[in-house]
Amino acid sequence: MSTTEKLTADEQILLEKMLSGEISLRKIEDVADKDTSAKLRRSFLEAKENVSFDHISNYSFDTEAVAKKNIENLIGAVQIPLGIAGEIEINGEYAKGSYYLPLATTEGALVASVNRGCSIITKSGGATVRVFKNMMTRAPIFKFNSLEETKDFYDWIMLPETFGKIKQAADATSRFGKLLEVQPFVSGNNVHLRLGYDTKDAMGMNMVTIASEAVTKLIADERGTPCVSLSGNMCTDKKPSAINAILGRGKTVIAEARFSGDFIKETLKCTSEAMFDVNYRKNFLGSMRAGSLGFNAHASNIVAAIFLACGQDPAHVVEGSLCVTEMDLTPDGGLVCSVTLPALEVGTVGGGTTIAAQQECLKLLGVAGASDVPGENSLALSEIVAAAVLAGEVSLVAAQAAGHLARAHAQLGR
Amino acid sequence: MSTTEKLTADEQILLEKMLSGEISLRKIEDVADKDTSAKLRRSFLEAKENVSFDHISNYSFDTEAVAKKNIENLIGAVQIPLGIAGEIEINGEYAKGSYYLPLATTEGALVASVNRGCSIITKSGGATVRVFKNMMTRAPIFKFNSLEETKDFYDWIMLPETFGKIKQAADATSRFGKLLEVQPFVSGNNVHLRLGYDTKDAMGMNMVTIASEAVTKLIADERGTPCVSLSGNMCTDKKPSAINAILGRGKTVIAEARFSGDFIKETLKCTSEAMFDVNYRKNFLGSMRAGSLGFNAHASNIVAAIFLACGQDPAHVVEGSLCVTEMDLTPDGGLVCSVTLPALEVGTVGGGTTIAAQQECLKLLGVAGASDVPGENSLALSEIVAAAVLAGEVSLVAAQAAGHLARAHAQLGR
Amino acid sequence: MSTTEKLTADEQILLEKMLSGEISLRKIEDVADKDTSAKLRRSFLEAKENVSFDHISNYSFDTEAVAKKNIENLIGAVQIPLGIAGEIEINGEYAKGSYYLPLATTEGALVASVNRGCSIITKSGGATVRVFKNMMTRAPIFKFNSLEETKDFYDWIMLPETFGKIKQAADATSRFGKLLEVQPFVSGNNVHLRLGYDTKDAMGMNMVTIASEAVTKLIADERGTPCVSLSGNMCTDKKPSAINAILGRGKTVIAEARFSGDFIKETLKCTSEAMFDVNYRKNFLGSMRAGSLGFNAHASNIVAAIFLACGQDPAHVVEGSLCVTEMDLTPDGGLVCSVTLPALEVGTVGGGTTIAAQQECLKLLGVAGASDVPGENSLALSEIVAAAVLAGEVSLVAAQAAGHLARAHAQLGR
Amino acid sequence: MSTTEKLTADEQILLEKMLSGEISLRKIEDVADKDTSAKLRRSFLEAKENVSFDHISNYSFDTEAVAKKNIENLIGAVQIPLGIAGEIEINGEYAKGSYYLPLATTEGALVASVNRGCSIITKSGGATVRVFKNMMTRAPIFKFNSLEETKDFYDWIMLPETFGKIKQAADATSRFGKLLEVQPFVSGNNVHLRLGYDTKDAMGMNMVTIASEAVTKLIADERGTPCVSLSGNMCTDKKPSAINAILGRGKTVIAEARFSGDFIKETLKCTSEAMFDVNYRKNFLGSMRAGSLGFNAHASNIVAAIFLACGQDPAHVVEGSLCVTEMDLTPDGGLVCSVTLPALEVGTVGGGTTIAAQQECLKLLGVAGASDVPGENSLALSEIVAAAVLAGEVSLVAAQAAGHLARAHAQLGR
Repeated sequence: MSTTEKLTADEQILLEKMLSGEISLRKIEDVADKDTSAKLRRSFLEAKENVSFDHISNYSFDTEAVAKKNIENLIGAVQIPLGIAGEIEINGEYAKGSYYLPLATTEGALVASVNRGCSIITKSGGATVRVFKNMMTRAPIFKFNSLEETKDFYDWIMLPETFGKIKQAADATSRFGKLLEVQPFVSGNNVHLRLGYDTKDAMGMNMVTIASEAVTKLIADERGTPCVSLSGNMCTDKKPSAINAILGRGKTVIAEARFSGDFIKETLKCTSEAMFDVNYRKNFLGSMRAGSLGFNAHASNIVAAIFLACGQDPAHVVEGSLCVTEMDLTPDGGLVCSVTLPALEVGTVGGGTTIAAQQECLKLLGVAGASDVPGENSLALSEIVAAAVLAGEVSLVAAQAAGHLARAHAQLGR
Repeated sequence: MSTTEKLTADEQILLEKMLSGEISLRKIEDVADKDTSAKLRRSFLEAKENVSFDHISNYSFDTEAVAKKNIENLIGAVQIPLGIAGEIEINGEYAKGSYYLPLATTEGALVASVNRGCSIITKSGGATVRVFKNMMTRAPIFKFNSLEETKDFYDWIMLPETFGKIKQAADATSRFGKLLEVQPFVSGNNVHLRLGYDTKDAMGMNMVTIASEAVTKLIADERGTPCVSLSGNMCTDKKPSAINAILGRGKTVIAEARFSGDFIKETLKCTSEAMFDVNYRKNFLGSMRAGSLGFNAHASNIVAAIFLACGQDPAHVVEGSLCVTEMDLTPDGGLVCSVTLPALEVGTVGGGTTIAAQQECLKLLGVAGASDVPGENSLALSEIVAAAVLAGEVSLVAAQAAGHLARAHAQLGR
Repeated sequence: MSTTEKLTADEQILLEKMLSGEISLRKIEDVADKDTSAKLRRSFLEAKENVSFDHISNYSFDTEAVAKKNIENLIGAVQIPLGIAGEIEINGEYAKGSYYLPLATTEGALVASVNRGCSIITKSGGATVRVFKNMMTRAPIFKFNSLEETKDFYDWIMLPETFGKIKQAADATSRFGKLLEVQPFVSGNNVHLRLGYDTKDAMGMNMVTIASEAVTKLIADERGTPCVSLSGNMCTDKKPSAINAILGRGKTVIAEARFSGDFIKETLKCTSEAMFDVNYRKNFLGSMRAGSLGFNAHASNIVAAIFLACGQDPAHVVEGSLCVTEMDLTPDGGLVCSVTLPALEVGTVGGGTTIAAQQECLKLLGVAGASDVPGENSLALSEIVAAAVLAGEVSLVAAQAAGHLARAHAQLGR
Repeated sequence: MSTTEKLTADEQILLEKMLSGEISLRKIEDVADKDTSAKLRRSFLEAKENVSFDHISNYSFDTEAVAKKNIENLIGAVQIPLGIAGEIEINGEYAKGSYYLPLATTEGALVASVNRGCSIITKSGGATVRVFKNMMTRAPIFKFNSLEETKDFYDWIMLPETFGKIKQAADATSRFGKLLEVQPFVSGNNVHLRLGYDTKDAMGMNMVTIASEAVTKLIADERGTPCVSLSGNMCTDKKPSAINAILGRGKTVIAEARFSGDFIKETLKCTSEAMFDVNYRKNFLGSMRAGSLGFNAHASNIVAAIFLACGQDPAHVVEGSLCVTEMDLTPDGGLVCSVTLPALEVGTVGGGTTIAAQQECLKLLGVAGASDVPGENSLALSEIVAAAVLAGEVSLVAAQAAGHLARAHAQLGR
């Protein structure tokens, strides 16, 4: 029973108990500290599964904190390569100035592509970014016994005083979260209540779950209706859905950059028209015909890379993929490029943001932790992500347009 | 100009050149090795952005390889905490036996939830898993000048001999990739050709891109039509789309587990009926009303965690979110639970799979690298991912059902 | 030059001028009354196209009125067979009592099927129906020159006083229409304003178009922004769209009926469980997997038939098809069936409602013309349509369930 | 008890029996002919519901035939006003030459709009039309007891010899219908088999239902699996669905017309650029943001009008609304306009096509009944419908573009 890491005699005894089944992978934390527990789990797996771990044991975060808040049965870490793109000039309401973008990825050429996008955007005056909506949602579902009951409940929900009560119950659960709206959706005898909150610098899923639980309690008390599920999937969390594309979730952000026709020719080796054409046929027409909810080239690549670097939830890449990329010709032969991200769920406190390396990436962007004006750090982060996506989209579409032109020329030259 | 890491005098000179703009972030690799380049970039950012990096510098992968194949402008790594769930008994065609699942995540409770799912599935006989389809796609788009031309091309594409030619051109580009089918989709004068390939143990995006480029060259030669874009978004890669949900992409995999009513009561503290009800109202009805393409609770969470652990592309979590979770009551009061993953893009060679820690996770699953029968490792991995998703879904729905019951009982007890 | 109908000498001269091209099909109305014009057009087509019209000349509506308001280049009428289903007991807020349903269709078995549905619903206590939302929409689109401008406009739209101004401009255009809400949706530099109105007994498309034109004028005056199109397709009119399924358009109506298990066995020759199962696998699962926005069996059949009978717009069948049909088992072995119609656009004044035969159908339902309390007739009509759809859905699902059972029994009996 | 129509003494007796409940609305046909039955039902309703019918009694079709094949409980007919648009020059594969289009509608301005479209298309060389696919579908659903069983069935279905058997069973049910393909879609333990047929001149729903029933019998015999429902909604019939938009149903048809920039300026009082812009922002961007499956202006209006005139199924307007309207600028300043109709279900035999007035409309188009080469009439009709839709789209977008220009000019002139 050899293991990669040295074990003390005491640890060796614990490992044997694990192997005999006396102590489970989870319970080992009752008798060992978090670091030792992780080590023992590694040794356990090595012994049992005939593998050896030389790399997952390599991590430097605060094991106690991570094992308490971020993960169970910790055995180590995977290292995602981190690259840097930029600078990119961002003219947002919250993010202003030049930024280096941290991107964690294993897809070769991605950082280079975003980097090129940053460069051409910056040379052309930077990315203008605006946040249009800011509201995290949770939508519990309630079931009634008859349509009359359902209608009664619906009418009650629509009363202004009901909103007052619900808001009071929800807001009492958090120092930061504020209920902004309650939107009921009915089908048959089921009512989904889509509750929308301002969650300040937190991405907010935990906050709105706790607040929404309070709302369901209030409704149980007032109306006698227990909720079927705290989430009835009209939130919608981590599934691609039209409701998020239409009504937004988290931050709804748009980033824009403008290029002259000459610049595109000289720098991107293609034309405004070719870029427009690729975007039109690929991102619009192709997505339409595919029955897609995302009208972009590879927004999710950039969202994933910056999310991983900054401790965001990688499953929220799903909502990031709802991006609409537009490229419009201007009368003077230039091109206006924009990305519309209807549902960007980001935060600068909580979740993975507190882990050491991720925290360093947030600091690099100047948005780590809570901001003086609560919420401004997460708003700034959302603007930065949108600008990064814009860089990635412009770069890829330009590359395809240049290839298209090249192919077309080759064709003509035959 | 203080930096966290010690620099040699030569490095110090290079750093100054970087700071003065003489050497760019990218070009530093021309004069320094990859490791030193990463260090110099970190020092550059520390100096310029007033941050200090104590953690992103902590990595143990092969910098030369990673900087060459996986990322540009490398500055280090983020560490994603890695936990372990299982064992889970899997009865697949390729994955057979007991598995410990590596999950990289920062979302507290996720590993615990999957772990619970593994436990109850295993106690009930394990997860049966089958792969129904296995085909990676790329869909270039061609534009024609008139409807007559478009129809001519379409008719030509439909000829058996055309398929033969296209297959020859495509298959010549790779030792492993094999073209399986060509499906044309027309709108106006645009034809999207959805090319489907068997890519063996590779996830295959690179392979099919190269093969499809050869197809576009053949078409340019034979028909004089340059392609507008190698991807016209009907592939569809990394965007949520009905075409992938319907026709599949990568692996189409289904995992199933069965539970007796008594087991659910005793172990899960709820009932078959309550689990059915939550799944029906949340995952079916709620998703339907949200205009969603995903009919599950949190499949993307599990897909993201296991993808990150195993070096898969995190942007493919988008396709993973298309999962349909079903829970059907059986005549004897039990429950059959299944997850259908129409578009699971996974591979065991290439991409992020070769990075040290990720490779260890694949080895833990027994699916690292190419298999003796090409393709079987990636098929086994897809079965394991499906089983993991099933564990996550069963666990979460059971928890919500138990909460639902608790709330309902509390309500009745008033 | 023989024609089916006798022409006077004067008419003969006019016909010759038409045939020579001197008078066009449209201009004939300048020199002949509407009835004669229709006759001459028929004769013209008979002469020119070598056909004879014995039936399309058969109509009894007020030609002057119809040719002025409902159609151009009138040549006659098609006769759609009209059948009757019912009685059906309806317990709505506006429709109360027993109704015979007029259905215009050419699909054999449709009336019989609805009729059966009416019968079983009535025997089981009738259909409860409620209207949850009532708002006709029009969504003009505005384009701006930059993201800053777009954001300025968006902020202006969100001001309470802007709503006041917009409402004043809109409401001034009609005695009945009232603006209820303005909802902006942004993508890139485009803003879609979804304007929602109460249009009382009118279906309201004309009313909201005129009111929305006034809104666009106000915006042009106040902000200098001309609108690109009075409809930017986020209304959404006559296209299947998630926005209507989610937010509703026209009336959002739900109808429900309840059946005991015994009743289903005796009367429908199947079981609650079999009906549930068919609905679950077909209307839910099948529609989900098809990427559908409609979760029903054949709602559009019934909507089409009653719309044609009652002078509604047949293209609004598209929105009618968004119906969600639910069948839920009750604890005592019964079944609760409901249909949720999120976007039912109906009216009892204007459009085709004033045509003679259609008017008779509306009178049969007791909802012809404007009601004393404006809006109540169209609300009652929407409740009746929902009840009719419920009858059609229950009947078809029961038939399939009975067939399913029969097939299953045959199978077991082998 | 006064009735509008005169009754004979015998009829009076029958009416009294109906009123007393002795004879039902349906059973009256057992003791009276179809015409008398219809009259008695009218009189019954007049007596019972206090209405009088002067117009629905006005019809000239063959009552016996209609009451047998097209409708039950016949009481008469509604008259839908019929107008004429055209001529339009059509360059199809099956429809060639000039056509007058019969349109049944009650929406003022619709015929005028299509008429204008016909005129401008014809002046510019006519509409080119091509059919790309021709396959009516029916998709029964089968449920299995376990994933192993499901996989076995799936593997069996994929065998070439299985297709042979299934085709034999299906083709034996009809002289015309031919099975073309079988496509399985799996979720959990459910398999939807999408069966695609050539149904020649019939729209084909009845034909494919009967053939598919034979297939389900074969499967029950061979595999012991009864089917849950002959339609599992992946057909998809009369519901808007991505599967039909992507894979097509009935005929997949594209129509195209080309206009010079000068022509657009002079005739349409707008510009190519303005038309492009309206189409881009409204039909593409607006539909995308609305989560729509239809990317057009008002295709369903034209489909509904020509369907009603020609005896097609008005509920199939749902599929007609899936139209994609494209307007592309040409290098020389012109515009190429096209409509892509992925799922046009039309026929020239059976259904409503045999009713007198509708038959006259089909004859006007030269496509009544079965063609010498079976299938060519329905193919020609599909080409005509596509051309009509193109006329409607071009006309409406041009009108909006002209309005847009007018508004923009008014704006600039302030």
